Parts: sequence; structure tokens; C-alpha cells
Amino acid sequence: MAEQPKPAPAPVAEAPAQAPPAEASAATAAAEAGDEGASTSKKAAKKAEAKAKKEAEKARRAAERAATAATSDAAAQAEDLAKDNYGQETDVTKYSPDAGHINLKTLGEESVGKTVTLRAWLQNSRMQGAKMVFAELREEGNWTIQAIAAANPEGAPVSRQMVKWIGAVNPESFVVVEGVIQKPLEPVKSCRVSNLELHITKCFVHAAAPTVLGLTFATANRPVTNFSDEEAKVEEGVEKLSIAPPGEATGVPAASMIAHLESIVMHKRAPVQQAIADIRAEVKQLFREYLRSLSFKDFEPPNLISAASEGGANVFRLPYFGQDAFLAQSPQFYKQIEIAGGRKRVFSIGPVFRAENSNTPRHMTEFTGLDLEMEIVKDYHEIMDTIEGLLLYIFRGIKERCSEEVELVRSVYPSEEFLVPEPGQSVLRLTFAEGQKLLREEGPEEFRNVSDDEDMSTPQEKALGALIRAKYKTDFFALDKFPEGARPFYAKEDPKNPKVTNAYDMFMRNQEILSGGQRINDPVELEARIRKKGVDPLSPGIKEYVDIFRQAGVPAHGGAGLGLDRVVAFYLNLPSVHLAAYYPRTPKRLTP
Amino acid sequence: MAEQPKPAPAPVAEAPAQAPPAEASAATAAAEAGDEGASTSKKAAKKAEAKAKKEAEKARRAAERAATAATSDAAAQAEDLAKDNYGQETDVTKYSPDAGHINLKTLGEESVGKTVTLRAWLQNSRMQGAKMVFAELREEGNWTIQAIAAANPEGAPVSRQMVKWIGAVNPESFVVVEGVIQKPLEPVKSCRVSNLELHITKCFVHAAAPTVLGLTFATANRPVTNFSDEEAKVEEGVEKLSIAPPGEATGVPAASMIAHLESIVMHKRAPVQQAIADIRAEVKQLFREYLRSLSFKDFEPPNLISAASEGGANVFRLPYFGQDAFLAQSPQFYKQIEIAGGRKRVFSIGPVFRAENSNTPRHMTEFTGLDLEMEIVKDYHEIMDTIEGLLLYIFRGIKERCSEEVELVRSVYPSEEFLVPEPGQSVLRLTFAEGQKLLREEGPEEFRNVSDDEDMSTPQEKALGALIRAKYKTDFFALDKFPEGARPFYAKEDPKNPKVTNAYDMFMRNQEILSGGQRINDPVELEARIRKKGVDPLSPGIKEYVDIFRQAGVPAHGGAGLGLDRVVAFYLNLPSVHLAAYYPRTPKRLTP
Repeated sequence: MAEQPKPAPAPVAEAPAQAPPAEASAATAAAEAGDEGASTSKKAAKKAEAKAKKEAEKARRAAERAATAATSDAAAQAEDLAKDNYGQETDVTKYSPDAGHINLKTLGEESVGKTVTLRAWLQNSRMQGAKMVFAELREEGNWTIQAIAAANPEGAPVSRQMVKWIGAVNPESFVVVEGVIQKPLEPVKSCRVSNLELHITKCFVHAAAPTVLGLTFATANRPVTNFSDEEAKVEEGVEKLSIAPPGEATGVPAASMIAHLESIVMHKRAPVQQAIADIRAEVKQLFREYLRSLSFKDFEPPNLISAASEGGANVFRLPYFGQDAFLAQSPQFYKQIEIAGGRKRVFSIGPVFRAENSNTPRHMTEFTGLDLEMEIVKDYHEIMDTIEGLLLYIFRGIKERCSEEVELVRSVYPSEEFLVPEPGQSVLRLTFAEGQKLLREEGPEEFRNVSDDEDMSTPQEKALGALIRAKYKTDFFALDKFPEGARPFYAKEDPKNPKVTNAYDMFMRNQEILSGGQRINDPVELEARIRKKGVDPLSPGIKEYVDIFRQAGVPAHGGAGLGLDRVVAFYLNLPSVHLAAYYPRTPKRLTP
Repeated sequence: MAEQPKPAPAPVAEAPAQAPPAEASAATAAAEAGDEGASTSKKAAKKAEAKAKKEAEKARRAAERAATAATSDAAAQAEDLAKDNYGQETDVTKYSPDAGHINLKTLGEESVGKTVTLRAWLQNSRMQGAKMVFAELREEGNWTIQAIAAANPEGAPVSRQMVKWIGAVNPESFVVVEGVIQKPLEPVKSCRVSNLELHITKCFVHAAAPTVLGLTFATANRPVTNFSDEEAKVEEGVEKLSIAPPGEATGVPAASMIAHLESIVMHKRAPVQQAIADIRAEVKQLFREYLRSLSFKDFEPPNLISAASEGGANVFRLPYFGQDAFLAQSPQFYKQIEIAGGRKRVFSIGPVFRAENSNTPRHMTEFTGLDLEMEIVKDYHEIMDTIEGLLLYIFRGIKERCSEEVELVRSVYPSEEFLVPEPGQSVLRLTFAEGQKLLREEGPEEFRNVSDDEDMSTPQEKALGALIRAKYKTDFFALDKFPEGARPFYAKEDPKNPKVTNAYDMFMRNQEILSGGQRINDPVELEARIRKKGVDPLSPGIKEYVDIFRQAGVPAHGGAGLGLDRVVAFYLNLPSVHLAAYYPRTPKRLTP
């Protein structure tokens, strides 16, 4: 493979003294496209976009070819005593093995004076005169170090050609650098590793970035400006490329969610996204840890099912070997089969699918569900105790294990501390009726007449959450005993008051994060309630559900389901769940 | 809800002295249906089945009604001093709180003489005369204890009526029992807790099982006789109910996979299935533990994607808001985006979908994928080292943490010990060419001419695995350097010998369990190989894939994917992966 031509950074002679910031060029391109497209139809705009894309790609390929050719030119230049110490080298097996690989996260002053190797992204570089170049090398998340290459008058190990070459490496190229760790004269404010710097002796580009990035590193780390697929759709491709006005403090422009997703690689490299991803992974881990410690068993419900699980609305349907299959909207049915099958306590983490045509920053068509189900020994409040313990464990776990990540996210998306009860204090638990009473008595004018028998609207939830935060200093609380009419057919009615159910919701920052309750475990009672809800107990999906409880005696049980994306987004108070997802799926977007 | 009629065990007076074994009745029903259906068409058989089902349900409902009525009769009987100590009681809040709940798993001799409460399934019961009943109570998996109720001449706390009532509780009902722990006169061989027994003072049926189970507990724990949906399909509903001839040693009949799945609740209650599920959950946990300890990050790839990921064959397609969506066949693309996005090392555990019309015990249309991807520092063998370490960790972990479960599974599905290298010894790693040479020189006649340039067939794999087990005493080995033609377009060719790739498979018990390798990380090289494979690099799905490597410099990387179901099935040498899955999905089966 060594004989294949490879893209390489443009040589100094041919590169502009300082490439214009990528945003500027993108903005210009967008503005031009905008001028052209403003008075034309959507179709024309689409066409223009396609054309622009095609041309951009043509340009990119030309740049690649030029770069490759230029490398050969450079090689043909006058003698360069450092010529073996830098260049394009894609074959990983060829990197010098003689210096210890370091990680910036664990690098300490004991390394001063030592020769080391660092694998990193070249975040940016800046020439100082013709003999010196400063580069910021980024390793993981936001770990950066300043690297310096200074040409030696003798030309070894660093020559002027080498310095110029490093100065022209495209930002976000992946480099392997050898050098000596030294203490800087004064702390390097721009880098996370501020007390050390790297004096380059070798520098190889292992994978070159393009001359113009779809999204610069700095812009990728700015708050996303617009989450609507809908708006962008109106302006088609034009809006996709548009960059919002420069941020107040930083001077760095910000971009829309669509622009981020079209440059998914740079979106993910942004420290804020790395931090969100790390927090998300840790929430999963905390969820599992806590439940496993309570003897819950992990299982996987199927995603392909034979009948629409919750009545057929908002469910994806697909052809399946001559029949129809559906994508599961929740693992409810299967969690209960596990309990019926003697598994006592189960949890699952997996995708759930909603074919809901909602184009908002709060909705996705696929997300990750966190579900649990357990036997009840004496009373369904055991489940609420377990869930509250679980969520407190998660909230406290985020604070303990991810404090740096949370702080980093807050530096981009500011939010107030997420308030939870002090250790030893219990979670605030009101009945639905108590919540409605609070709303009637202390809430806004418009909620003076809310009823105890009807489900709450989202504005009611928000108003109640605000009242509770002010009154009880908590961002996390539970509402118990939801009215019968607000709960699905499988919800157990309160034996003492059948107008309400043994069912609850829990809230984070004024928004519902979790729904759950005791399920009916007796087939006769279940059929009766299904009929009461106006549903035929023999209809497809329903009959199979009821039959589970006829197969053998099933103990009392209940559980809950919540969305991982929402837990992360609500905890961090992100402007959209799309930021908490790895690959958000919306009615208009299935890529990347 | 207390006023609602509830099913209850039939009173002694009306119940047959000993209900006929459920299998017998099911077999009779099946035989009858079979007689009727034998000469008719499939359609008629289906109709007959539907009719039989309808009637069975009618009968069941009648029994429920009768039982309810009879309970009132019983209540109206002569004075029963124990009448508050037993009965049907669905309301969990009413169970006596005054005795400590026990778990059989942790029950010790220090409990002798103490009054305790046990929540369990009544596995079976047997009257001894009119005054005494023996019951086997099962708590979790296969933890059982013998319980005895002996009528006191004074009638309190246990009366003759109570004894008879317990003797008539349907097997697999869920009961809450209060009693005193005592030492039996001699060890109880039939129960796992053999050194203690429970002398019943109260017994409530919390959830009644039906009189006739679809699958008895004993049959559910016998080896499944037949995994073919295909065969069963031919005989429609008839075969579904059929029960195979009695097992040699036990005298308990065994049933087909379809019969098991139609009685999913009993299938899951079988100790062998509980053990398999426990092992499966632990494999997931071991996978995560090991990779997290090496700084791998958990992430979730999307399942809904916009283009068929591997060329369009065997992929499920569904309508998606006016466009088409596909179900992901592998997280390959997304693992690589994570690496490009700076995540260094990632893993995922989630569903993968294959629309392959294969009706065999080895295939499923949905299964759980275990995937990993990592940067390469110097050489792709780093990945092989990591995977081998991971799998050894899993194999040793199963042995250490699940020895009882493995033994239990072997008691139903016998298998030889899974051979792995001793600690400190490395995993056997041959090149593909070395494997072929071994086959040619020492394998069966038919493989004397196998080529180094073509992929292996399944029979070749099996033959090679057998040779290796005999020669190297291992059930786990790796084959490296697969021929170029046997690997997909994204596989990296060996720079020193482009006829082979930096790609490998690993094997468990002679079967391929894992495929992986180094991926091409350079867009120019990638396009060239795509063209070499005869694919247009601008075709849908492919273009988006290549573009990822153009967005910014992506370091060398590679990984692997394996199936959780297969790891479990191969380790235990189960006759089908369907037994390792929670809810196996086949072209003909989407239920339960």
C-alpha cells in the first residue's frame, strides 16, 4: 500500500501565509448560495445546494491531488538534514518505537527532560518568524499541550523546512510527534497541560485533515444555535451551511444542529460533546451498578414484534417474510414476561422506537430506554423507593465521577446546579391530588381550576415543578396516585380508591422523566379493566398480553421506564435531547 | 378491586383425587386434533386449531367461574378454626408482616425454630392420608424446599380443610407461606434445600395457575426436542402441542421449541433456562468490565439508518415519513465514526438485524451484537491481543462466577469442558494459510486441495477446529491474515502482501464466533479498494462512509464484532442459539 499516493499537507511555499478561518469561507459560501437562492423555489435551492456540494468536493479532490504532488516536489528540494524527521506516513508500523508513548491526562513533571512520543490531533499551529512554530496538540476530550519546533542552525534534528512543514499541517490532522518534555518559561494559558511543553524532534502526519473543515474545532465547541429540522427544511441546503453570528465573548461563530451533524466527526471531537458522551456512558453504568447490587437481572427484550404494543399509534411497521412486523415502542410486555417467568427483578437498556411526526428539540424517533420491573412483596411503594434510590445514586454518581465533565458542559451550556435531597433525606413524594392542589392554590392564574381526575399538561408540569423547586429546593420529585383515566389499561387501580391508580411519574427540572406503577397481575381483573377502557380483550397484541397471566400464577409486580437521553439532557439542562444522543433520529433525519 | 371475582384453586370436594399430569391431557388433545386434521388441508388444520383453542379457553373460563363459586361454598361450610390461615388473597398489602421474609439461597440452620414467611411457586403437592400434605416450594431458579402442613386435631393453626385445600392448589401458583423452619428427620433428596423444611402455619395463594399448564415444570426443564419452525409449520397447530416421547432416565416427556415458546412463562421458569439467562447476563457484564478497565467507552449506534449498511442484501426496509429506512445489520459504520470523532476506544452492546430467510437452529433475524473498535498505536495485532484477553476474561469469568449454572445446564444439555489456555499461556494464533496447510496435510480427504486464497466453508472450519482441539487442546483459537477476496471493502490489505488482509476470525468449539480486522483509514486508499471490489464509491451508503474519512484525519484503527447469543450457545455447546436468546426471532416467528 506504500506505493499509493496519499494526501499530505500543502508545502509551505504553496500555502497561504495564514489560511483564512474555515468558518469565514463557509460563511461566504453560504452567503453566496443564499443570495442566489433567496428568490428561487425550494427545488432550485436544493439544486443549488447539490451543485455547491459537487463543486466543493471537486475542489477538495484537487487539493488532495495537489498536496500529493507537492510532497514529491518537497522531497526533490535541496538537502534537508531533518528530512527523515517529518513527513506524511500512513503506515503505523513505521513509527519510531524508541520513545515512551505518553498520555496527556497522566503526564507529570517527572517526565521533564525525557524523550516521549505523543499521538494527537494537531489542533492548530502558528509560525513565529521562519524558524519556529507553535502547535497545540490535543489528545482526548480537551487535553492539550503546547508543542514547539525550533529550527537548529545546523538543520538537525529540526530544519527550517521542517518548521515550515509543521506550520502548514492542516488543523485536525492526526500526528505522531516525538519530542522532549520541558517546563515552559511561563504557564501556557491556552492549553490544559499548562506546566509542561513538548519540544519537537520528529513529526509525522498519520492522517491528514482537509484544508477546509466542515466545522472548525472552535465552532464545534460553541453552543448549537438551532435544533429545528423544520426551519432548515424551509431553506433547504442553504440554511444547513449557515453559521450564526459570532459568540459574544469568544468571537467564534456557532452553527446549527444540522451543520453539526453534517460534520459529525468534528461535532464529536468538540470537548463539550466528548463530555456529554462520557456523562451518558456513566449514567448507563450507574443504572446497571445500582440495579445489579439489588439483584436485578439484565435482559434484552426483542425489537421486532408481531403486534403494535400500545394500540398501534406511532409505531413503525415493516414487511417481514410475508407478514408485518413492528418495532417495539417499549419493553413493557417483555419485562412482565420475565417477571411471570420467575426472574424476580429485571432491567433492560436498549432502543425504543416512536413513529411520531414531531419535529421538536424534545423528540426523537429512536432513543435509549432504561427499564426495570420487579416483584412487589407488600406494597408498590417498594418500587418507588427503589427508583428514587436508583435516581439519587445516578445524580450523586454524576456529581462524584463526572464533575469535570459537568463543569465543561456548563462552560458551553450554562445551567444551575441540579438540586437533590441531602444524603439521608428522602425524595419529595406528593400525590397527584396534592400536586394539583398546590397548583390551584399557589400556581399561576390559569391553573386555578385544574382537576384531580385529568392528566396534567406540559405547562402544568412546568408550573408545578417551578413551585416545588422554590418551596422544597429540589429538582427531583415524585407524583403518586395518578387518576385512573390518565393511565393505560395495565395500570393497577388503588383497591381503596379506584378513581386513582398505583402509578406514579417522576420529574427532573420540571419535566417528566419517568412513568411507572403497579401492573395488574390477575387475568380476570386485567380483562375487566381492558373492557372498561373500551378495548376488546381479544384484539391482537392485547389477547397475547392477557394470556401471559393465564399461563401460570404471576406475582404482584411493577416497574418504570425512562429515557437515557432525557436523563442526561435534563440533568445538564441542555437545550435539546439531540445533544445527548449519539446519532439523533428525527422524522426528517436518518443520517449520519 | 376486592369485590371482583378471582380465580381460586378448586375445592377438594370437586377436584379429582389427583389431576392427570398436564402433559397427558395436552398429548390427548393433540392426538385428537391430529386425527381430525391429518387428512385435511393446512387451512383446515389451522381452523381446527383455532377452534380447539377457543374451546380450551371456554373451558378454562368455566373452570375459573366454578372455582370462584366453589370458594363461596367452601366458606359456607362447617366451622374451620384455621379459616383465616389460608385462602386466595390477591391483595399483597394483606399478607402478615409479623414474620421475617426468607430467601432459600441464604437460608441457614440458624433459622431452625423460627417463624418465617416465604414467597414462592408451589411446584407440586402430595397428600399423605387426609391429614398431611407435602409441597415443594420453589423460589428462584432451582432453589426448592419441602413444606409440610399437618392437621392438628384441634384444627388450629392447621385444620383438615386447610390441608386438603393446600393439596389442591394448582402447581405453579404463586403462594405466600408462613411457617416454622425445622430440621427434617432425614435429608430431603428431592429439594435443593435438603437440610431444612418448612412447617406451614399459613398458606395464601396470591396468583393461581390454571388447572392444566401448557408445559409442566418438569417438561420445561427437559432438553428441547426440535428447533425447526419449518417442520412444525408443515403440521400447523397440531405439531405445536405435540410432546416428544418420555426421556430415558426421568420418564418426563420433552417438548419442541415451539411448544416451549408458546408456553414462554413455563419455559422461562425452567431452571435450565434461568441458568442460561444468568450466564448470558454475566457474559455481557464481563464484556463491559474488561473493556471499561481498558478505557473503552460505551456508546449506542442507531438502529434506524438511511442506507443498507452492507450492500443491501438481507436488510429490513421500512417506510419512514415518506422515505425508506433500514434496520442496521452491524454498528460498523458508527463504531468508526466514534473513532474518527476522537473516542479512541469504544464498545457497544445492542441489537443487530438480518433479514435472512434461514430457518435453522443457528440463525435468528435479530440478535445481540457485542462490538468493539480501537485506535491502533503500532500494529493491528494490538487488537487481537485485546480481543483474546477479553474472551479469556469472559471464559474464565463464566467458570468462576457461574460454575453452578454451567453445571445445571450440563445436567440437561451435556457438554465437554470448554478448553482454554492455562493462565499465562497465550491463545493459539495461526495464519489463514497455516490453517489451510494443516487442513491439507492432516485433515479429511475432501480438504486435501483447499486454497489459501478462498474463504473457508463451515465444514472446513469444523474440520480445522477438530484438528486443533486434538493437537493443541484448545476450544478457542484465532486465524489471522484472511485472503483479500474473503474480506469486505473496508478491510486493510497487508502492506507487505496485498493478497491477504490485516483481518482475523476467532473460533469457539470449531465455529466462527468473531470477525474483525484493521480498517482502511485513508479515504484515497479506501476508494481504490472499493473500486477494486467492483463497487461504485459514490453509491448510497458507500459515499457517506468514505466521506467520514475526508472530514478530518482519522487514525489507524480496527475492531471486531461477535454475537452474544453465539458466545453463550457455543460455550455451553447448546443445540441451538435459540436457547441462548430471550425471545428468539426467526423468519416464521415473531412471538412471544
